[in-house]
Amino acid sequence: MNYPQIILGVDPGTNIMGFAVIKIWNPNHYEVLKMGVFNLSKLKEAYQKLGEIYKKTTSIIQEYKPQCLSIEAPFYGKNVQSMLKLGRAQGIVIAAAIAENIGVFEYAPKKVKQSITGNGNQTKEQVWKILAQLFKIETQVDYYDASDALGIALCHYFQNNTPVINTSKKSKDWSSFISQNQHRIKN
Amino acid sequence: MNYPQIILGVDPGTNIMGFAVIKIWNPNHYEVLKMGVFNLSKLKEAYQKLGEIYKKTTSIIQEYKPQCLSIEAPFYGKNVQSMLKLGRAQGIVIAAAIAENIGVFEYAPKKVKQSITGNGNQTKEQVWKILAQLFKIETQVDYYDASDALGIALCHYFQNNTPVINTSKKSKDWSSFISQNQHRIKN
Repeated sequence: MNYPQIILGVDPGTNIMGFAVIKIWNPNHYEVLKMGVFNLSKLKEAYQKLGEIYKKTTSIIQEYKPQCLSIEAPFYGKNVQSMLKLGRAQGIVIAAAIAENIGVFEYAPKKVKQSITGNGNQTKEQVWKILAQLFKIETQVDYYDASDALGIALCHYFQNNTPVINTSKKSKDWSSFISQNQHRIKN
Repeated sequence: MNYPQIILGVDPGTNIMGFAVIKIWNPNHYEVLKMGVFNLSKLKEAYQKLGEIYKKTTSIIQEYKPQCLSIEAPFYGKNVQSMLKLGRAQGIVIAAAIAENIGVFEYAPKKVKQSITGNGNQTKEQVWKILAQLFKIETQVDYYDASDALGIALCHYFQNNTPVINTSKKSKDWSSFISQNQHRIKN
Protein backbone atom coordinates (compact mmCIF):
# COMPACT_ATOMS: atom_id res chain seq x y z
CA MET A 1 0.00 0.00 0.00
CA ASN A 2 1.27 3.42 -0.93
CA TYR A 3 1.58 6.23 1.58
CA PRO A 4 0.67 8.95 2.18
CA GLN A 5 -2.97 8.59 1.23
CA ILE A 6 -5.28 11.57 0.99
CA ILE A 7 -9.01 10.89 1.18
CA LEU A 8 -11.94 13.27 0.93
CA GLY A 9 -14.99 12.23 2.93
CA VAL A 10 -18.33 13.89 2.24
CA ASP A 11 -21.68 13.63 3.95
CA PRO A 12 -23.93 15.19 1.32
CA GLY A 13 -26.95 17.15 2.40
CA THR A 14 -29.02 19.89 0.86
CA ASN A 15 -28.71 22.28 3.78
CA ILE A 16 -25.60 21.28 5.67
CA MET A 17 -22.90 19.35 3.87
CA GLY A 18 -20.08 17.90 5.94
CA PHE A 19 -16.63 17.30 4.54
CA ALA A 20 -13.25 16.14 5.79
CA VAL A 21 -9.91 15.73 4.06
CA ILE A 22 -7.60 13.28 5.80
CA LYS A 23 -4.00 12.39 5.19
CA ILE A 24 -2.81 8.95 6.21
CA TRP A 25 0.95 9.36 6.51
CA ASN A 26 1.38 5.74 7.57
CA PRO A 27 -0.67 3.17 9.51
CA ASN A 28 0.17 4.97 12.74
CA HIS A 29 -0.16 8.58 11.75
CA TYR A 30 -3.45 10.09 10.65
CA GLU A 31 -3.98 13.79 10.07
CA VAL A 32 -7.01 15.97 9.37
CA LEU A 33 -6.02 18.44 6.65
CA LYS A 34 -9.37 20.19 6.60
CA MET A 35 -12.77 19.52 8.09
CA GLY A 36 -15.98 21.48 8.21
CA VAL A 37 -19.39 22.08 6.75
CA PHE A 38 -20.88 24.03 3.90
CA ASN A 39 -23.90 25.75 5.35
CA LEU A 40 -26.31 26.08 2.43
CA SER A 41 -29.41 26.90 4.44
CA LYS A 42 -29.12 30.62 3.65
CA LEU A 43 -29.36 30.01 -0.08
CA LYS A 44 -32.98 29.92 -1.12
CA GLU A 45 -32.84 28.49 -4.62
CA ALA A 46 -32.24 24.76 -5.02
CA TYR A 47 -29.92 25.41 -7.98
CA GLN A 48 -27.90 27.93 -6.01
CA LYS A 49 -27.37 25.27 -3.37
CA LEU A 50 -26.34 22.67 -5.93
CA GLY A 51 -24.05 25.18 -7.63
CA GLU A 52 -22.41 25.99 -4.33
CA ILE A 53 -21.92 22.29 -3.53
CA TYR A 54 -20.30 21.78 -6.93
CA LYS A 55 -17.97 24.74 -6.64
CA LYS A 56 -16.92 24.04 -3.07
CA THR A 57 -16.34 20.33 -3.66
CA THR A 58 -14.31 21.10 -6.77
CA SER A 59 -12.21 23.69 -4.96
CA ILE A 60 -11.45 21.27 -2.09
CA ILE A 61 -10.40 18.57 -4.56
CA GLN A 62 -8.19 21.01 -6.44
CA GLU A 63 -6.61 22.33 -3.25
CA TYR A 64 -5.95 19.06 -1.39
CA LYS A 65 -5.73 16.64 -4.31
CA PRO A 66 -7.25 13.60 -2.59
CA GLN A 67 -6.83 10.26 -4.36
CA CYS A 68 -10.51 9.51 -3.90
CA LEU A 69 -13.87 10.58 -2.65
CA SER A 70 -15.70 8.54 -0.03
CA ILE A 71 -19.38 9.35 0.44
CA GLU A 72 -22.17 8.15 2.61
CA ALA A 73 -24.32 5.60 0.81
CA PRO A 74 -28.07 5.91 0.48
CA PHE A 75 -30.22 4.95 3.35
CA TYR A 76 -33.81 3.85 3.33
CA GLY A 77 -37.01 5.02 4.86
CA LYS A 78 -37.13 8.66 3.85
CA ASN A 79 -39.84 9.90 1.55
CA VAL A 80 -39.37 10.05 -2.22
CA GLN A 81 -38.99 13.82 -2.40
CA SER A 82 -36.25 13.97 0.21
CA MET A 83 -34.49 11.04 -1.49
CA LEU A 84 -34.61 12.86 -4.81
CA LYS A 85 -33.04 15.94 -3.21
CA LEU A 86 -30.42 13.83 -1.48
CA GLY A 87 -29.71 12.01 -4.73
CA ARG A 88 -29.20 15.33 -6.51
CA ALA A 89 -26.76 16.54 -3.85
CA GLN A 90 -24.88 13.23 -4.07
CA GLY A 91 -24.87 13.43 -7.87
CA ILE A 92 -23.35 16.91 -7.72
CA VAL A 93 -20.55 15.77 -5.41
CA ILE A 94 -19.92 12.66 -7.52
CA ALA A 95 -19.79 14.79 -10.68
CA ALA A 96 -17.17 17.05 -9.08
CA ALA A 97 -15.05 13.96 -8.36
CA ILE A 98 -15.56 12.60 -11.88
CA ALA A 99 -14.60 15.96 -13.39
CA GLU A 100 -11.38 15.92 -11.36
CA ASN A 101 -10.70 12.27 -12.24
CA ILE A 102 -10.70 10.81 -8.78
CA GLY A 103 -12.36 7.56 -7.75
CA VAL A 104 -15.65 7.45 -5.86
CA PHE A 105 -16.55 4.99 -3.12
CA GLU A 106 -19.59 4.80 -0.92
CA TYR A 107 -20.33 3.29 2.44
CA ALA A 108 -23.55 2.80 4.35
CA PRO A 109 -23.77 4.69 7.67
CA LYS A 110 -23.74 1.41 9.60
CA LYS A 111 -20.65 0.28 7.75
CA VAL A 112 -18.86 3.50 8.70
CA LYS A 113 -19.70 3.11 12.38
CA GLN A 114 -18.85 -0.56 12.32
CA SER A 115 -15.45 -0.02 10.73
CA ILE A 116 -14.49 2.67 13.22
CA THR A 117 -15.98 1.41 16.46
CA GLY A 118 -16.59 -2.24 15.73
CA ASN A 119 -20.31 -1.71 16.22
CA GLY A 120 -22.71 -0.39 13.59
CA ASN A 121 -25.16 0.83 16.18
CA GLN A 122 -22.96 3.26 18.10
CA THR A 123 -24.08 6.86 18.55
CA LYS A 124 -22.47 9.77 16.73
CA GLU A 125 -20.91 10.83 20.05
CA GLN A 126 -19.25 7.43 20.47
CA VAL A 127 -17.93 7.49 16.91
CA TRP A 128 -16.64 11.02 17.39
CA LYS A 129 -14.81 10.06 20.59
CA ILE A 130 -12.80 7.42 18.74
CA LEU A 131 -12.18 9.68 15.75
CA ALA A 132 -10.93 12.44 18.06
CA GLN A 133 -8.46 9.97 19.61
CA LEU A 134 -7.25 8.60 16.28
CA PHE A 135 -6.73 12.05 14.79
CA LYS A 136 -5.67 13.68 18.08
CA ILE A 137 -8.35 16.33 17.89
CA GLU A 138 -8.95 18.15 21.14
CA THR A 139 -11.58 20.65 20.14
CA GLN A 140 -15.26 19.93 20.15
CA VAL A 141 -16.86 19.34 16.78
CA ASP A 142 -19.37 22.02 15.74
CA TYR A 143 -21.51 19.88 13.51
CA TYR A 144 -21.85 16.14 13.45
CA ASP A 145 -22.08 16.40 9.66
CA ALA A 146 -18.37 17.22 9.70
CA SER A 147 -17.48 14.35 12.03
CA ASP A 148 -19.64 12.02 9.93
CA ALA A 149 -17.60 13.04 6.91
CA LEU A 150 -14.40 12.33 8.84
CA GLY A 151 -15.71 8.87 9.66
CA ILE A 152 -16.65 8.26 6.03
CA ALA A 153 -13.15 9.19 4.89
CA LEU A 154 -11.48 6.97 7.48
CA CYS A 155 -13.86 4.10 6.73
CA HIS A 156 -12.52 4.07 3.18
CA TYR A 157 -8.97 3.82 4.45
CA PHE A 158 -9.82 0.99 6.85
CA GLN A 159 -11.77 -0.77 4.15
CA ASN A 160 -8.74 -1.00 1.91
CA ASN A 161 -5.90 -1.18 4.36
CA THR A 162 -6.74 -3.48 7.21
CA PRO A 163 -7.64 -7.13 7.19
CA VAL A 164 -11.39 -7.54 7.33
CA ILE A 165 -12.36 -8.79 10.73
CA ASN A 166 -13.46 -12.38 10.43
CA THR A 167 -17.15 -12.32 11.17
CA SER A 168 -16.98 -15.59 13.04
CA LYS A 169 -14.56 -13.93 15.43
CA LYS A 170 -16.46 -10.68 15.56
CA SER A 171 -15.64 -8.51 18.55
CA LYS A 172 -18.39 -8.94 21.07
CA ASP A 173 -17.39 -6.09 23.28
CA TRP A 174 -15.31 -2.99 23.29
CA SER A 175 -12.27 -4.46 25.04
CA SER A 176 -12.01 -7.41 22.64
CA PHE A 177 -12.43 -5.02 19.72
CA ILE A 178 -9.54 -2.97 21.08
CA SER A 179 -7.37 -6.02 21.52
CA GLN A 180 -8.07 -7.04 17.92
CA ASN A 181 -7.39 -3.56 16.58
CA GLN A 182 -4.21 -2.40 18.27
CA HIS A 183 -3.08 -0.68 15.10
CA ARG A 184 -5.96 1.75 15.45
CA ILE A 185 -4.96 2.92 18.91
CA LYS A 186 -3.05 6.15 19.37
CA ASN A 187 -1.31 7.15 22.54
CA MET B 1 -36.50 38.23 -26.92
CA ASN B 2 -33.18 37.42 -28.51
CA TYR B 3 -32.83 34.93 -31.33
CA PRO B 4 -31.55 32.43 -32.13
CA GLN B 5 -32.00 30.49 -28.92
CA ILE B 6 -30.31 27.17 -28.33
CA ILE B 7 -31.77 24.94 -25.63
CA LEU B 8 -30.63 21.55 -24.37
CA GLY B 9 -33.43 19.30 -23.14
CA VAL B 10 -32.56 16.26 -21.05
CA ASP B 11 -34.69 13.44 -19.73
CA PRO B 12 -32.34 11.95 -17.13
CA GLY B 13 -32.43 8.25 -16.49
CA THR B 14 -29.96 5.75 -15.16
CA ASN B 15 -30.19 3.37 -18.10
CA ILE B 16 -31.45 5.39 -21.02
CA MET B 17 -30.93 9.13 -21.01
CA GLY B 18 -32.71 11.16 -23.68
CA PHE B 19 -31.35 14.44 -24.93
CA ALA B 20 -32.23 17.01 -27.58
CA VAL B 21 -30.56 20.24 -28.64
CA ILE B 22 -32.91 22.66 -30.37
CA LYS B 23 -32.28 25.94 -32.11
CA ILE B 24 -35.10 28.46 -32.26
CA TRP B 25 -34.14 30.71 -35.18
CA ASN B 26 -37.29 32.77 -34.76
CA PRO B 27 -40.88 32.15 -33.59
CA ASN B 28 -41.64 30.37 -36.87
CA HIS B 29 -38.51 28.36 -37.38
CA TYR B 30 -37.48 25.58 -35.03
CA GLU B 31 -34.63 23.20 -35.70
CA VAL B 32 -33.34 20.04 -34.03
CA LEU B 33 -29.54 20.29 -33.94
CA LYS B 34 -29.06 16.92 -32.28
CA MET B 35 -31.33 14.40 -30.65
CA GLY B 36 -30.81 10.93 -29.26
CA VAL B 37 -30.19 8.78 -26.25
CA PHE B 38 -27.24 7.66 -24.20
CA ASN B 39 -27.72 3.96 -23.69
CA LEU B 40 -26.10 3.22 -20.34
CA SER B 41 -27.59 -0.19 -19.80
CA LYS B 42 -24.42 -1.94 -20.93
CA LEU B 43 -22.34 -0.30 -18.21
CA LYS B 44 -22.55 -2.35 -15.06
CA GLU B 45 -21.11 -0.04 -12.43
CA ALA B 46 -23.31 2.80 -11.18
CA TYR B 47 -20.30 5.16 -11.18
CA GLN B 48 -19.42 4.25 -14.75
CA LYS B 49 -22.95 5.24 -15.73
CA LEU B 50 -22.77 8.52 -13.85
CA GLY B 51 -19.34 9.22 -15.31
CA GLU B 52 -20.65 8.60 -18.80
CA ILE B 53 -23.64 10.88 -18.22
CA TYR B 54 -21.30 13.62 -17.01
CA LYS B 55 -18.89 13.33 -19.92
CA LYS B 56 -21.58 13.10 -22.59
CA THR B 57 -23.60 15.99 -21.21
CA THR B 58 -20.47 18.13 -20.94
CA SER B 59 -19.43 17.30 -24.49
CA ILE B 60 -22.89 18.19 -25.87
CA ILE B 61 -22.85 21.52 -24.03
CA GLN B 62 -19.35 22.29 -25.30
CA GLU B 63 -20.23 21.34 -28.86
CA TYR B 64 -23.62 23.07 -29.24
CA LYS B 65 -23.27 25.82 -26.65
CA PRO B 66 -26.90 25.95 -25.51
CA GLN B 67 -27.93 28.98 -23.44
CA CYS B 68 -29.62 26.73 -20.93
CA LEU B 69 -30.51 23.24 -19.81
CA SER B 70 -34.13 22.20 -19.41
CA ILE B 71 -34.74 18.98 -17.49
CA GLU B 72 -37.70 16.96 -16.46
CA ALA B 73 -38.73 17.72 -12.90
CA PRO B 74 -39.18 15.07 -10.26
CA PHE B 75 -42.33 13.07 -10.21
CA TYR B 76 -43.90 11.28 -7.30
CA GLY B 77 -44.88 7.74 -6.50
CA LYS B 78 -41.70 5.83 -7.19
CA ASN B 79 -39.90 4.10 -4.37
CA VAL B 80 -37.11 5.79 -2.43
CA GLN B 81 -34.27 3.82 -4.03
CA SER B 82 -35.31 4.62 -7.59
CA MET B 83 -35.77 8.27 -6.60
CA LEU B 84 -32.28 8.35 -5.16
CA LYS B 85 -30.86 6.95 -8.40
CA LEU B 86 -32.89 9.40 -10.46
CA GLY B 87 -31.76 12.24 -8.22
CA ARG B 88 -28.14 11.26 -8.73
CA ALA B 89 -28.55 11.17 -12.51
CA GLN B 90 -30.23 14.58 -12.39
CA GLY B 91 -27.52 15.92 -10.11
CA ILE B 92 -24.85 14.81 -12.58
CA VAL B 93 -26.57 16.54 -15.49
CA ILE B 94 -27.14 19.69 -13.42
CA ALA B 95 -23.47 19.70 -12.36
CA ALA B 96 -22.39 19.52 -16.00
CA ALA B 97 -24.54 22.59 -16.73
CA ILE B 98 -23.20 24.42 -13.66
CA ALA B 99 -19.62 23.62 -14.67
CA GLU B 100 -20.28 25.08 -18.12
CA ASN B 101 -22.05 28.13 -16.65
CA ILE B 102 -25.43 27.67 -18.24
CA GLY B 103 -28.79 28.10 -16.51
CA VAL B 104 -30.91 25.17 -15.39
CA PHE B 105 -34.70 25.00 -15.55
CA GLU B 106 -37.01 22.15 -14.77
CA TYR B 107 -40.53 21.26 -15.76
CA ALA B 108 -42.92 18.60 -14.56
CA PRO B 109 -43.91 15.99 -17.18
CA LYS B 110 -47.50 17.26 -17.19
CA LYS B 111 -46.32 20.81 -17.73
CA VAL B 112 -44.30 19.71 -20.76
CA LYS B 113 -47.27 17.93 -22.32
CA GLN B 114 -49.58 20.79 -21.48
CA SER B 115 -47.34 23.42 -23.02
CA ILE B 116 -46.95 21.47 -26.26
CA THR B 117 -50.36 19.94 -26.76
CA GLY B 118 -52.55 22.03 -24.49
CA ASN B 119 -53.38 18.93 -22.47
CA GLY B 120 -51.24 17.52 -19.67
CA ASN B 121 -52.69 14.06 -20.08
CA GLN B 122 -51.80 13.36 -23.72
CA THR B 123 -49.87 10.22 -24.59
CA LYS B 124 -46.22 10.26 -25.67
CA GLU B 125 -47.39 9.42 -29.22
CA GLN B 126 -49.65 12.46 -29.33
CA VAL B 127 -46.90 14.72 -28.03
CA TRP B 128 -44.46 13.29 -30.55
CA LYS B 129 -46.89 13.89 -33.43
CA ILE B 130 -46.99 17.60 -32.65
CA LEU B 131 -43.23 17.83 -32.07
CA ALA B 132 -42.60 16.10 -35.42
CA GLN B 133 -44.80 18.69 -37.13
CA LEU B 134 -43.21 21.66 -35.38
CA PHE B 135 -39.67 20.51 -36.11
CA LYS B 136 -40.52 18.98 -39.52
CA ILE B 137 -39.18 15.59 -38.55
CA GLU B 138 -40.27 12.80 -40.84
CA THR B 139 -38.45 9.84 -39.37
CA GLN B 140 -39.83 7.73 -36.58
CA VAL B 141 -38.31 8.30 -33.17
CA ASP B 142 -36.33 5.34 -31.83
CA TYR B 143 -36.77 6.03 -28.17
CA TYR B 144 -39.43 8.10 -26.49
CA ASP B 145 -36.73 9.25 -24.07
CA ALA B 146 -35.33 11.30 -26.93
CA SER B 147 -38.70 12.77 -27.90
CA ASP B 148 -39.39 13.50 -24.23
CA ALA B 149 -36.15 15.47 -24.13
CA LEU B 150 -37.22 17.35 -27.26
CA GLY B 151 -40.51 18.23 -25.55
CA ILE B 152 -38.67 19.36 -22.42
CA ALA B 153 -36.43 21.67 -24.47
CA LEU B 154 -39.35 23.16 -26.38
CA CYS B 155 -41.38 23.56 -23.19
CA HIS B 156 -38.69 25.88 -21.89
CA TYR B 157 -38.91 27.99 -25.02
CA PHE B 158 -42.72 28.19 -24.87
CA GLN B 159 -42.57 28.97 -21.18
CA ASN B 160 -40.52 32.07 -21.79
CA ASN B 161 -41.65 33.17 -25.19
CA THR B 162 -45.39 32.84 -25.56
CA PRO B 163 -48.17 34.39 -23.56
CA VAL B 164 -49.40 31.98 -20.95
CA ILE B 165 -52.82 30.69 -21.94
CA ASN B 166 -55.39 32.22 -19.67
CA THR B 167 -56.64 29.34 -17.57
CA SER B 168 -60.18 30.71 -17.55
CA LYS B 169 -60.18 30.39 -21.31
CA LYS B 170 -58.39 27.07 -21.32
CA SER B 171 -58.76 25.07 -24.52
CA LYS B 172 -61.35 22.41 -23.98
CA ASP B 173 -60.63 20.48 -27.12
CA TRP B 174 -58.01 20.04 -29.74
CA SER B 175 -59.57 22.33 -32.37
CA SER B 176 -59.96 25.24 -29.98
CA PHE B 177 -56.38 24.73 -28.81
CA ILE B 178 -55.25 24.93 -32.44
CA SER B 179 -57.23 28.07 -33.04
CA GLN B 180 -55.66 29.67 -29.98
CA ASN B 181 -52.16 28.58 -30.92
CA GLN B 182 -51.78 29.40 -34.59
CA HIS B 183 -48.18 30.44 -34.04
CA ARG B 184 -47.30 26.87 -33.19
CA ILE B 185 -48.59 25.43 -36.45
CA LYS B 186 -46.17 24.67 -39.26
CA ASN B 187 -47.19 23.89 -42.78
